[in-house]
Amino acid sequence: MSAPVIILSRPQLGENIGAAARAMKNFGLFDLRIVAPRDGWPNKKAGIMAVGAVDVLDKAGLYDDAAAALGDLQFVVAATARERGVTKPVLTPFEAARRLRETAADGTRCGILFGSERSGLDNDEISLASAVVTIPTTEFSSINLGQSVVLLCYEWFRAMDATPAMRIDHGPVAKKATREEMIQLFEHLEEELLKSGFLYPPSKETPMIRNLRALLNRADMTDQEVRTLRGVIVALAKGKYRRRPPEGA
Amino acid sequence: MSAPVIILSRPQLGENIGAAARAMKNFGLFDLRIVAPRDGWPNKKAGIMAVGAVDVLDKAGLYDDAAAALGDLQFVVAATARERGVTKPVLTPFEAARRLRETAADGTRCGILFGSERSGLDNDEISLASAVVTIPTTEFSSINLGQSVVLLCYEWFRAMDATPAMRIDHGPVAKKATREEMIQLFEHLEEELLKSGFLYPPSKETPMIRNLRALLNRADMTDQEVRTLRGVIVALAKGKYRRRPPEGA
Repeated sequence: MSAPVIILSRPQLGENIGAAARAMKNFGLFDLRIVAPRDGWPNKKAGIMAVGAVDVLDKAGLYDDAAAALGDLQFVVAATARERGVTKPVLTPFEAARRLRETAADGTRCGILFGSERSGLDNDEISLASAVVTIPTTEFSSINLGQSVVLLCYEWFRAMDATPAMRIDHGPVAKKATREEMIQLFEHLEEELLKSGFLYPPSKETPMIRNLRALLNRADMTDQEVRTLRGVIVALAKGKYRRRPPEGA
Repeated sequence: MSAPVIILSRPQLGENIGAAARAMKNFGLFDLRIVAPRDGWPNKKAGIMAVGAVDVLDKAGLYDDAAAALGDLQFVVAATARERGVTKPVLTPFEAARRLRETAADGTRCGILFGSERSGLDNDEISLASAVVTIPTTEFSSINLGQSVVLLCYEWFRAMDATPAMRIDHGPVAKKATREEMIQLFEHLEEELLKSGFLYPPSKETPMIRNLRALLNRADMTDQEVRTLRGVIVALAKGKYRRRPPEGA
């Protein structure tokens, strides 16, 4: 599946072209087309902002107008914040990315079209597109061009990204503690707390033990962390005895 | 519900601080805290990049270290791309936003912590946070600081945004065509096509009509557009008759 082409129509600031290239490479898009950039091409500031993505800039195509830049594409989404009264589907970035994925899956050539910093896309440019995508915002809706490209590239990547919503990095050796290791930890702690008098009077014992077990379970520990905590208990218990020996010691 | 505080630890470039402020305002976050900015504070370049969000910069708090900037917060997510071997939940931006919303709902004070452009957050800073958020990328994982702030602010906003995934802007007066208006359009077109000989031979008639109806249905037209198309049919049919009168005319 080919990633969408990014078309920047009449961009003004090299910094934004460079930021677009960097974001494209972050999120797996590589085909950049630039229509009539105000400050000419190539642009030194674009290169500085692109950091490790200068290859995207080097391969970028240069065009005189948006129609020429879009000619070979089959499904194009125009990014605009304005209400235009043009009867065309207006998509969220999430939905645009979903449709782009769905459309590109059979080899259909797709693109996302962005307008200039000053005035965005004009109605002629929007009329070339199949749909409009609008980034939802507060009432302060003026989004930087480079940032708009970032958001749409991110949504494209995310639409197929399989990163789990939550994972815990246990490092190279540690693994999640077994229930047995947790139970041994509970019993070790409770034994020492009983000796120390912390669980006195007996009416306090059961609810306190339950609370401590809940807290320790919630921490979702590794086997290594259980061993560390058991070391902590030994150290604290010893220290306690040293300072104030229990009766009969 | 209070939006999360954005904490930038040791930022280097004023441009990124300004870009962060602008994105915050786009997506409904207002509390910015800046820890030991390299080029001092206030920063002129930050003001230029913030455009309409200088109010966020003006109210920003200045701190000596991350611990001081986080002191009053109760749930903090640290944004980092690196694998650290620290056993802490690593969330996607989507999941981080979901948890921030869920956590902030009862008044819990939340924040998102970002590191410097050069090296991100160090392990001491990460140890102050409750969880880590990592933006999924291709192997080219170096994301601009300003852009990272944009993506996380966007996900925060999106987590409660009710914009429909797709809507069609029919403008102030037009409304979706009724089925009756569509059927009249079909019959008008088919009558003219029959007269013109386009539907000949009769074996072609039914499949051709079905294809045309499917196409017109797919366009999901307004009443105004139906009237426009009927005008188009009249104009074309007249033109045709003018150029080459049908037999018997």
